[in-house]
Formats: sequence, structure tokens, C-alpha cells
Amino acid sequence: MKTLRKTWALLLFLSGIVFAGEGMWTFDNPPKKLLKEKYGFDVTQEWLDHVRMASVRFNDGGSGSFVSPNGLVMTNHHVGLGQLQKMSKEGNDYVENGFFAKTNAEEVKCVDLELNVLMAMQNVTANVTEAVKGKTGPEAAMARRAVLAQLQKEIGEKSGMRADLVSLYNGAEYWIYSYKKFTDIRLVMAPEQQIAFFGGDPDNFTFPRYDLDMCFFRAYENGKPYNPPHYLKWKTAGAADGELVFTSGHPGSTARQQTMAQIEYLRDYQIPYQLKNFKRRLESLKAYSARGEEQSRRALSLIFGLENSQKAIGGQYSGLLDKNLMSKKQNDEKELRDRVNADPELKAKYAWAWDTIAVAMQRNKEKFNELSYRGVTGSLAPRALTIARYAAEMKKPNGERLPQYQDANLKATLENLYSPAPVYLDFEQVQLQDRFEEALEVLGANDPWVKAVLEGRTPQATAELLITNTRISDVAFRKALIEAGSDEILKSNDPMIKMALRIAPIGDEMRQWQEKNVNAALAPAVEATGKARFAVYGKELPPDANFTLRLSFGEVKGFPMNGTKAPSLTTMYGLYDRAFSFQNQKDFELPKRFQDGVGKLNLTTPMNFVSTNDIIGGNSGSPVINAKAEVVGLIFDGNIESLPGRFAYSEEKNRAVSVHPGVMIETMRKLYDANILADELEGILTKPEPKKESPAKNTKPAKKKKK
Amino acid sequence: MKTLRKTWALLLFLSGIVFAGEGMWTFDNPPKKLLKEKYGFDVTQEWLDHVRMASVRFNDGGSGSFVSPNGLVMTNHHVGLGQLQKMSKEGNDYVENGFFAKTNAEEVKCVDLELNVLMAMQNVTANVTEAVKGKTGPEAAMARRAVLAQLQKEIGEKSGMRADLVSLYNGAEYWIYSYKKFTDIRLVMAPEQQIAFFGGDPDNFTFPRYDLDMCFFRAYENGKPYNPPHYLKWKTAGAADGELVFTSGHPGSTARQQTMAQIEYLRDYQIPYQLKNFKRRLESLKAYSARGEEQSRRALSLIFGLENSQKAIGGQYSGLLDKNLMSKKQNDEKELRDRVNADPELKAKYAWAWDTIAVAMQRNKEKFNELSYRGVTGSLAPRALTIARYAAEMKKPNGERLPQYQDANLKATLENLYSPAPVYLDFEQVQLQDRFEEALEVLGANDPWVKAVLEGRTPQATAELLITNTRISDVAFRKALIEAGSDEILKSNDPMIKMALRIAPIGDEMRQWQEKNVNAALAPAVEATGKARFAVYGKELPPDANFTLRLSFGEVKGFPMNGTKAPSLTTMYGLYDRAFSFQNQKDFELPKRFQDGVGKLNLTTPMNFVSTNDIIGGNSGSPVINAKAEVVGLIFDGNIESLPGRFAYSEEKNRAVSVHPGVMIETMRKLYDANILADELEGILTKPEPKKESPAKNTKPAKKKKK
Repeated sequence: MKTLRKTWALLLFLSGIVFAGEGMWTFDNPPKKLLKEKYGFDVTQEWLDHVRMASVRFNDGGSGSFVSPNGLVMTNHHVGLGQLQKMSKEGNDYVENGFFAKTNAEEVKCVDLELNVLMAMQNVTANVTEAVKGKTGPEAAMARRAVLAQLQKEIGEKSGMRADLVSLYNGAEYWIYSYKKFTDIRLVMAPEQQIAFFGGDPDNFTFPRYDLDMCFFRAYENGKPYNPPHYLKWKTAGAADGELVFTSGHPGSTARQQTMAQIEYLRDYQIPYQLKNFKRRLESLKAYSARGEEQSRRALSLIFGLENSQKAIGGQYSGLLDKNLMSKKQNDEKELRDRVNADPELKAKYAWAWDTIAVAMQRNKEKFNELSYRGVTGSLAPRALTIARYAAEMKKPNGERLPQYQDANLKATLENLYSPAPVYLDFEQVQLQDRFEEALEVLGANDPWVKAVLEGRTPQATAELLITNTRISDVAFRKALIEAGSDEILKSNDPMIKMALRIAPIGDEMRQWQEKNVNAALAPAVEATGKARFAVYGKELPPDANFTLRLSFGEVKGFPMNGTKAPSLTTMYGLYDRAFSFQNQKDFELPKRFQDGVGKLNLTTPMNFVSTNDIIGGNSGSPVINAKAEVVGLIFDGNIESLPGRFAYSEEKNRAVSVHPGVMIETMRKLYDANILADELEGILTKPEPKKESPAKNTKPAKKKKK
Repeated sequence: MKTLRKTWALLLFLSGIVFAGEGMWTFDNPPKKLLKEKYGFDVTQEWLDHVRMASVRFNDGGSGSFVSPNGLVMTNHHVGLGQLQKMSKEGNDYVENGFFAKTNAEEVKCVDLELNVLMAMQNVTANVTEAVKGKTGPEAAMARRAVLAQLQKEIGEKSGMRADLVSLYNGAEYWIYSYKKFTDIRLVMAPEQQIAFFGGDPDNFTFPRYDLDMCFFRAYENGKPYNPPHYLKWKTAGAADGELVFTSGHPGSTARQQTMAQIEYLRDYQIPYQLKNFKRRLESLKAYSARGEEQSRRALSLIFGLENSQKAIGGQYSGLLDKNLMSKKQNDEKELRDRVNADPELKAKYAWAWDTIAVAMQRNKEKFNELSYRGVTGSLAPRALTIARYAAEMKKPNGERLPQYQDANLKATLENLYSPAPVYLDFEQVQLQDRFEEALEVLGANDPWVKAVLEGRTPQATAELLITNTRISDVAFRKALIEAGSDEILKSNDPMIKMALRIAPIGDEMRQWQEKNVNAALAPAVEATGKARFAVYGKELPPDANFTLRLSFGEVKGFPMNGTKAPSLTTMYGLYDRAFSFQNQKDFELPKRFQDGVGKLNLTTPMNFVSTNDIIGGNSGSPVINAKAEVVGLIFDGNIESLPGRFAYSEEKNRAVSVHPGVMIETMRKLYDANILADELEGILTKPEPKKESPAKNTKPAKKKKK
């Protein structure tokens, strides 16, 4: 059996097809054959529809799922963190102290959270092909953009749902995804950040791990808890070692189908720039953070995000510096190009593309600094830029506008612009000044963008002047400007708006240069490599991730680690071991609740576990489900060995890290006085179940058990 | 402070001097200045003498220490394991069940254990220099050997102690070390192997770790517990994070002063051979082990030893494949050679040596297979060879004999030969057959050694014939042969003796070839590099390890591990986490005592900890002591990152792994019903202290406290 499987894996490898566990599959194309052959599991359309409609996208960059008939949504604490911070006020710190609403009335409304549920997927590739027929270059791009904007608008208007344009396989397929949208989201439960992110940055992206990285929200519709037609049942016992498990979530981005030229650009330009940038911004944020407790609270989420990115991108970078990985990528590309060249028809259609991409990447390299360092940061300056761009774009017809100003997206753009989330002026100023200093250092004082920003002042004086005098932090001011229209914006005296109006054209010019000299060639070439891959391997390979809903499969399984083996799961015993090993200090300090409550707990309760599922950033908060679509875990991280997964998946060491349902129920019942929530998850009815409008098609009613 | 220390470390590095924590120092030359400057610690002669005479060498390859006024000796379970196995009979398995003697009368005498305590060290370098003056080549080697044998004999006879010849700094210094010798050693306490070696081979050489790798013996003299003049006091609380700690023990071997030619020989010949050999022997032993429970028990210690060596040598090998380490070694060698070449006197004396070593290693490479594969294995065939060699060597004058047949060593050689430890014939046969098969494969049927062994039979038939018909397994038979003398041995009809008599001359011939073509040149050249290093750096660098007593210093300190940090210590919570993480299975199964007794334990008790002390195999069982020479730990392993330490020390990641005194006392009192032993360690008197013949000079009397 072992030998057979090895041989089979080898054959698949040789023919460029995926390994077991590899792949973030679209819901229209799950690896049915593989799942049948390897696990004897039949993926039915019913199962797929149920899982898809129980899956939730957190639009600020995470995943989640419906886990009760009353609209309860499960995600990670670190996905909810931004909202928790925005809700918090002095003396009312949900991040530090956690939160639990015993009744619906106690639930706290999120400031600006949007959740999406993927209700329909429509393949519009044929429409695009038809629209661009006979056209090439910019003309084709324009035609494609126009037809897609049109389709997006039509489909959205017809369904009344949010319609998103989705490009797969490097543009070999175009889809419109329709989402049911929720904007009334209320916080139900969050543990203390100290336990959600136990181990802090050191333990981030590692395993064995001991985090309670969970957060529960409730979706409301018309002021009442929403009753989703599909939600996932709960299994407190979790999954067994070796059991087949799935994740359904929204991986943000992979680069597995990029060409060597693109990957080398990442390795030699983009990623070194990012790592330098993270380091600089972290230094600046930590200096700000050190000013006081309130400043520390404000900077927390950004610091966490940057440290997270720093470790993530650093891990990717190590993959790109790994000779084995790079030579595997090189071989893959060689094989694909050889197969393209061996077929006269494919050769004529696609063989040119790789060199074209290489030329385009070379051009990008030449303008790298201008493209990278001419940018603002924080939350105010980008909003001023949105307003300045709005003024220009709204004078154009819909199809010619930048995507975010087109009718289909404008509402979301403005909603984002009007976010009432608090703005901290001193914090904004620190970030702006640092960014300006960096641009000055790298681009020099004579760079047009630098000149337009500084107008001869120092970065410090500029940041101070802008922040002191702008009114952009006032939502009403932003709204008033937009409502006054383009001409009023162009006449504004606000210094931040004025700066935005000065730099927007420079940015536009850069973008146009890039559009003309890089993207115009790159887009069709990338599409051609996607189509070539498609022609050679078909849909046996999944497309790169792009924050759309994907299904991944895998097994609960430990891995070889630093000379020994990591188990497939950890227990609550280990949480206390790690805390006391570090003298209960800093990142390893237990919340008081956990220190005082240790005697109440069954410490053999599983805490976190790993599986071979292929995931990446954006999957945070994804449910891990078994073959019966029951929740057996909550994705919150990948191990350090999974980071090069952006470019290639390794079954041996790549692991997804999840919170076990056992620890969620154990702590809710024993430490958080949250039996009512545990009951809701476990399907134990403590109050009459509200009427459902459309009962779940694929799920049995919740088990009725009296506690 | 941080910057200062960095600079200082850099300066030391540039001048070829050791890093903080580096070095296995001889007791005549501890790093006094470094300890004073870095830790403010004054190493007094009194402190050194006290620690030295409280340290114990386990002659079968480990370390230990006196830890009570009544001759209690602490070491590792894996150091005592061989004895535990020899004591065990069916239904009386001390390895599986552990052991505790509540009274002296219940203590079990070891089968063939010898302990040594280093009482005196005499530098005889001047005598050697005098003896070899004006001589070169084989003549010098012969003169050196003769004067050393003479000195060893004289010193031993005068002191009545065991006198060992010790060569340091590649022969730049010669010493005679005098040991007080104990052969009446009795077992006091051993835990179950399952907890001593919790985590088994996977966790071996790793940290975080959860092992109770302790074993207690008692040294007897004249049938009574020995009262050592020096023993180490006990500190149950252990050492604090960052505290200065020492180890005093017997590191077996390092290769830090070897030349690049020697290291490359290890990398390209010796170590690949060893790894291949381990793999083969393990396969054979595991097949034998699978025959039944009794066979499994017999093979256990050998399998453990081989797996241990496999991981250790594998870790060393990874160091030799590491470009950074190799380029550091290359730079070190270059610097030393440059400094030698820059000084006309040093150049004339030593510059030739490196090339001579390279030539010698090249010759070794050419005869590698003959040198490596012409050897027997098991315990019977080597004894037959000892007897055959005895017959030949005893006809020569003392000074010309092979070292182990010289008067000073003969007694130890014969004691080893007469060991009453049980021999398992089927086990011997399996090992011999496998070894013969390997020799046949590699050397071919026409190799003289292979011919002499097999005499035309198959390896299987040969092994069967030898084992079935030999009487070597009978101690009385061995004794009778030796007592009958050389001529009777030469006439023996025993097939194993006959084979030994056939192959001994072939082995002698190989050894003579090697002596003449390799060692004759190598020994003076290696000595010259040692003297060159000595001339350039003096005794600021310690000599390579050679299973003589060494002092190492360091700090209790965690380390960066697989993306996160390993803490400096683990707690008993972690033991239960790791057990339950692996479903309490196989290597991670807790003994019943630990499963049932969890409720009695304080799980915050520290279990294992790491420190930067520079140690290596042979240090197992060494006490870790604080500045007051109190026991704060028991060395039992190094982390996986320490394995390349054979060639170079890295303060960043190289860690010694120890059992914490806290877990020893906690489990003795709560699980092993061994309060009396815990009391003896903690200095709590539960019975009148026996009269001492010579009260400890440097230690206060044990604290008198009533329990």
C-alpha cells in the first residue's frame, strides 16, 4: 500500500499534477476523483452547496462560517481584532479583557464590518472571449474591462446581491461571484487577546501551539438575528489522527503559477523591499507605542499585522532562497514550456508569453523605486487620495473609470471612505513623517512626487502641517466633499486634499506608464501562460488563490520537527507548561481567568491541532470540517514550514494549524460562564428555536437535548 | 552593555580565542580570567579540588558525582542502563519496572561496573621531551611509549591507584592521571526506562524535553558504604534563568583541533561509513528484536546505543556539510598557518605538519575498506581476539607490547575479559553473520581476512559453526586459557580461538601498515599542529576532549528554535501534554505510576532545562552545579543544534540538556515512595550519620533538619 502510493505520487509529480493535500480548489471544480480514490469520499453537489453557503468571507481579510441556526459566525480572534479595537474605549478594553454577551441585547454592533456569503458563481469566460475577438493590446484590455463591468452591473442588479468579478487561471477563466452581504454584525464572544494570541509573535507561524484564537459574531438582518439556510453542525470531539478534513475559506494570494521571471522579480526586488519596509515601519510604530498605554493600544493591531507579515514574507523569502524549491519551479516551467513547444498549435499561441513576461518584469525593475516609494500611508492620506481621484474619475464614463470608481464598486468605495472608525492624529503624523522620510532618502529631493509632497519643507514639518490642518478625520467633512462633487473637491483648501490633488496625477502617470509598458504586455502574456497551462493540464490543477472561496482537503497529521516529531495535536496541559516554562511572562502570560481557573479544567482537552490542508493568509477563521461537514476545528495559522507554500506545497512539512473545538467548549463552560454559547454551538436548545424562513436542505435539525 | 559584549566577542573571535560558554577545560587550567571578567566569579583551587574529587567517571562511558556523605552516586539512567540490563532476569526487569532499595541491604550489586575518581594529575611532558630528545620517527615513538609506560607503572605502584596516561593538545602535553577506583557499586534507585527515556529516539537530542533520566548508585569500600571526602550538596530549587552554572564530567571526544585534511577525511570517508554501518546493524538488530520479548530485551541497549550514535553522528555530519561551519574551520586553520608562517622559528618547526597530515589521510583513504571492514562484532569474537593477541603479546617485553597488554593495563584488560555478564548465543550469531556478510560484500571473497574467517563457507554457516562450537561464552574457559599461557592458547581447538588466531596476524599486519605509513607520520605531525597552536594561542584554548575530567561553564538560557523560542526550562505539565498529544502511545507512553499519580504532583515543578555549557557524549550523568558547587541539574543530553559541536561550538544554539533537581525530589517523594533517598539528597538526616574517616575539607556538614 505504501509503495503503491509512493509510486502514484511520483507519477503525478512527473506529469505535473498535484500531490495529495495540495490545492485550494474552486467550488465548481473540487478534486472529486482524488478524494474518491484516496479516501473513498464522494463529493456531492449537495455537500458542496451546503459548505459553500455556510462559509463566510470577512471582507477585511479573513474567513468564517455560520455555526448555528441563529446566525452565529465563527472566526479567529485575530480576524475580529480590528473590530474589537474599534469598539474598545478607555476602561472598556475588549481586546485585553475579552467580551461575552449573555443575551442578544448585550451583543455589540461592529463599527464597519462587512460579511459576504457566496450564493452564486457564473462563468462568463465565453462573453469575454466573444468581446475581445479580433482585438489585441490595449484595445482588447479595454474591451474586456468594458464587458466585465457591464456583466458585473447586470448580474448585480438582477440578483440584488454584491457581484464581484473573479479572474482564475491567470485570466483563462472569468467569473462573476454573487454574494449575500451582511453589514449588521454584532460581537457575541471574544476571549482575552493574551490567550487568543498566547505565545505572541515568537509562537506565530509555529506548532506545537496553544492558542484560543476564536471570536464569535452574529449576523443580523433587519435588526434580527439572521437564520442562515446553511450552517455547520458542531463536533466537540474533533477529528481523529489521520482523518480526512476539509477547510472552506478565502486564501488571499498564491504565486504558484507565476513564471520564473515573476518569481525572480519577487525574490530580488519585491520581497526584499517589503522586508525592509516592514522593519522600518515596525521601528517607527514601536517608538510610537512606547509613548504610553493608549498609544500602545492604538498601534497594537498594526504592529501585530506587520510582525505577522514580516514573519510570513520572511518565510516565503526563505523558500525563494531554497535551491530545491527553485529548481523544482524551474523544472515545472521547463516541462510546461517543452510541452507547449512540442505541440505546433500551442507553440504558435503561447510560446512567446514567457519571454514577454521576462521583458515586462525587467521594465518593472527599472522603475522599481518610483513604483514602490511614491505612496502614502496611515488612514487619512489614503482617504484624501480617494477623494482626489473621485473628483477626476467621476468626470469619465463608467467603463473608463478606475475599477473602484465604477458604478458596481462605488458604493463599497464610499462606505469604506465614510468609516466612522476613530482616527488618532498623532499616530497618523508619525506614520506619514516616516513614510516621507523614506521616500526622500530613496527617491531624492528632486523626485516630482517628493517635491509635490514636501514643497520644500522637511518631512517632519510636512507631516505636522498636514495633520494639524486637515479636516479629513471628520466623516461629515469627507461626506460633504463627495456630495459637493468633483469641482468643489478640486477647489478645496484642505491641505491634505491639496496634497492629494498634487500627487494623484503623478501616481496616475506612473500607473499609466506601468499600464502601457508593463501591464499591457504582461496581462495577455500572463493570460497566455495560464491558458497554456490550462491547455496542457486542464483543470486538474487549481488556480492561484485570490481571496475567493476555496476548498482544501487534508489529513490530521503530525510532522517531523527540529530533530523530533510534532504531534498532530496539543492539550491544555501544554498551555500551562509553556506559560510556566517562561515564568508566565510577556507573550506567555496567562490571563487571570486561566491562572485562577486551572483547577476547573480537564487539561487533557485538545487545544490546537495540525492537518495537511493547503491554506494561506486569508484562510484565517476558516472552519475545518469532517466528511459530514461538521466543525472539527478553526484554522488560525500555518506552521513555519508552510510559508514557502505561496510558491509550492510540501506534503511532508506543510501544516495548517487550528483551534480544536474541545478547548472552545471546555473554556466557554468552565472559565467564561458561557454555557449558553456552548449550548448554541453544540445544538443544545436552551430557548425555543426561532422560526426559519428556509430550512437547511442538507443538514438535519440540531440535536435536541436538555442540559 | 549589549554592544560592549558584542564587540568583545568579535575581538575574541578575530584573535582565535574562545567564545563565552565554549570549552571543555582541564582542571589544571580553568578559564579563570574569563569567569572573573564575565561573571565576577573567582575560581579557587579549593573549589576546583572539591568539584574534581566529587566527580565520578563511569568507565563504560559516562559521568557521575558523589551527592551524599554516604557514597551516593548520581548519574543518568542511560548511563546505568547496561548494568540494569545485566542485573535483570525474567520476571525481575529493572529496566521496565524501575528499582528502589529502601535499605542498604536491599541495594543490588552491579555486575561489572568500575567507577573512578580523579585524585591527582601529574604533568610528565618534560620527561617525554627528555626521552625523545634527538630521536625521530619510529624511534621517537618507541622512546615516548617506553617512558610513558614506565612512568605510568611507577606512579601507579607508588600511589596504589589506577594511573592513566593522558595526552592533551594533540600530544603537546602528557599527563598521568591517578584515579581512586571503585568496583563494588550497588544500585539504589532507577525509575522506569519509559520515563527516564520519555519520548524515545524521536525526542533524543532535542529540547523542549521531559525526561527523568536519573539513576542512583552507591559506592562501597570494604563491604561498607564509602564516605567520600568530597560530595556535592543539593539544591532542589535549581538555578535561575541566566545563572552561571558549571558541569564537571568526562566528554568523550571532540575534533575541534583537527586539521581540514582530517575533518575532510571524516566527512568523506569515516562518517559516511559509520552511518551506513549503523543503518545496517540496526536493521539486523531490529529483526532479531522482533523474534520475541526476551530477544527484544537483549537487543534494547545495543539498539538504543546505535540509534543514539546514528542521530549524533548524523548531526555531526550535518555540521560538516554546513558551509558556514566549514568556512569558519577553514579560516581558523588559515589564520593559524599564517601566524606560523609569519614567525621564522615556528615556520621551521611546524609549517610542514599540515601537508604531512594531508598525505597521511590520503593513505588512510586508499586502504579505507580494509581498515574498516576487517573487524568482528558482538562480545564473543572480540574476546577470542583478546585471548589470541594475549598469546602473542605476552611473549614480548612489556614496553613493546600493545598498550592493553602492558603491565599497567593488563589487569583491566583481563577484568573485562572475565566479565560474568550473560552472553546470548543466538544474538551473537546474528551479529557475526551480518558482519561477515558485509565484509564479504565490500572486500570480496579473495580478501585474505575474509578467506581466513570464512574458509570457503558462507557467512551464515560460519557464524553458526563458530557459535555452536565455541566455549568462549564460559568465563571459566576464558580464565583457564589465559592461565594456561601463550603456548596452550596457540594449540587451542576452540573454533572461535582458532579463527581469532588466523585473523589476528592479518589485523596486526594492517595495524603495522597503518603504524608505518600513516601513524608514524601522523602522530608527530598532529603533535606539531598541537604544539603550533599551543605556541600561538597558549592554553587560552582548551584541548580536545578525551574522556578525562573537564570543567565547562555556561548560563541557563533558552534558544531560538524552528521559528520560535525554546524556553530555558520545561515543567511537568509538559510531560503530560506530550504524552496525551501522542495518545500516550509508544515512546510517549507514561509509566502507570505517572498515569495514576498525576493528582499527587505539583505540575509546575521544573522538569528539564538547558544551559550554554559546552558538552559532548561522555558528559552524560555530569552534575550541573552553581557557583557554590551545589547540584542544580543532571546533564543527560544536548539539543540537536549542539551535535556539530564536535567540530565547533555555537553559543547561539548549542545547548546542554539537564534533568532539574526539582523533578527528582518531587517524583521520589510523591510517586516512588522514596522519601529516604530524597532526604539523603536534600541533607535531611533520617538516621544517624555514619562515622567519617576523613571529613570533607571544603564542605560544611550536611544541614541537620528534622523532617
